[in-house]
Amino acid sequence: MTVTITAFKASPDRGRGLARDMRVRWALEELGQPYEVRLETFAELKQAEHLERNPFGQIPTLEEEDGLALFESGAIVMRLAERHGGLLPREADARSRAIMWMFAALNTVEPPIFERSMATVLEADKPWSAERLVMLDDRVKTRLSQLSARLGEAEWLDGDFSAGDLLMITVLMRADAGGLVQPFPNLVAYLARGRERPAFQRAFEAQRAVFEASQAQP
Amino acid sequence: MTVTITAFKASPDRGRGLARDMRVRWALEELGQPYEVRLETFAELKQAEHLERNPFGQIPTLEEEDGLALFESGAIVMRLAERHGGLLPREADARSRAIMWMFAALNTVEPPIFERSMATVLEADKPWSAERLVMLDDRVKTRLSQLSARLGEAEWLDGDFSAGDLLMITVLMRADAGGLVQPFPNLVAYLARGRERPAFQRAFEAQRAVFEASQAQP
Repeated sequence: MTVTITAFKASPDRGRGLARDMRVRWALEELGQPYEVRLETFAELKQAEHLERNPFGQIPTLEEEDGLALFESGAIVMRLAERHGGLLPREADARSRAIMWMFAALNTVEPPIFERSMATVLEADKPWSAERLVMLDDRVKTRLSQLSARLGEAEWLDGDFSAGDLLMITVLMRADAGGLVQPFPNLVAYLARGRERPAFQRAFEAQRAVFEASQAQP
Repeated sequence: MTVTITAFKASPDRGRGLARDMRVRWALEELGQPYEVRLETFAELKQAEHLERNPFGQIPTLEEEDGLALFESGAIVMRLAERHGGLLPREADARSRAIMWMFAALNTVEPPIFERSMATVLEADKPWSAERLVMLDDRVKTRLSQLSARLGEAEWLDGDFSAGDLLMITVLMRADAGGLVQPFPNLVAYLARGRERPAFQRAFEAQRAVFEASQAQP
């Protein structure tokens, strides 16, 4: 009996680990938990069966053996951490600070990075594209500069590696794909520490294999 | 001995409850907890003393009596809920679903609403403003339509009122300020149910009083 997650059948990131199932796969690998994957096409994500799992038509979702169904990568990582007793400190104050970094990753650092990424796809052919990109890059740089200042020479954001680091590193991966992390050497090193974790590598290879299989089909 | 939060000395929302300290005030009122408020000017938010509290230079923050300091409104609401035993169900699966709605509010529903709101302020004088606003409105409408379909005729998102509803309602307030909730009668009613709660009203009046005091000063 294992949990089931959903992922793109053919991820638009072409297997670079930027789709949000990466967060859940990585958390499951850190916790040593097996999982099944239900692959979805874009059309299937908008159909009733998937909308029952996630009303916003997105991946990932989590289905447990006993019927619990969740969406939102942050909430799924939190559930896995609580259920399996890892990725969050046991001491209450340290736990709250790790949860703070989970929210900081998803509600403060990710939005400008995601907007910048979407603009380069959806608005690349608009007459305002170049001028706006300068503005969007500045917003991302401000956030990364603040994150860099707080991280300093620390290995992880607050004590041991936590769910906060896991989410922050996946958020930084999208910024790095746009070349925006490189000016911050300590964030480059932090990202590298995350990517070097064996659990990350297993998760990364698993999601890349899905993309490669999708390309091999007729 | 009470906790201390931070808020804008003169909020750019002019006391309409859109600044994120509203979430923390409302949670504290729901839990029946007293609090002190440290007011900050925009200049003070960028200074070292505040950056120690929140490296991203934002409000709100939470400082507990014994020294714990947190930022991120979502994380603060979660801490308050866990510390005071309210706003989240006790049963594990229901608790995970309420946390799911917290993340859905902040990571899926808020970003397009916040982007739309920022564009009307920061890019109002740009030549692309009108054309982009149509696109930004469509993104918000898609999310609100999906939320409306899931809420249906339910009173709250999942069972009793929770921290998920609290965050979602504050997110909807910003969309409502832009006239985007009105096409969804069940979301209008949901928002009204939130605003009618006595704890909401106490929090709203408290934040509005700060803005009004700021305007009375020479």
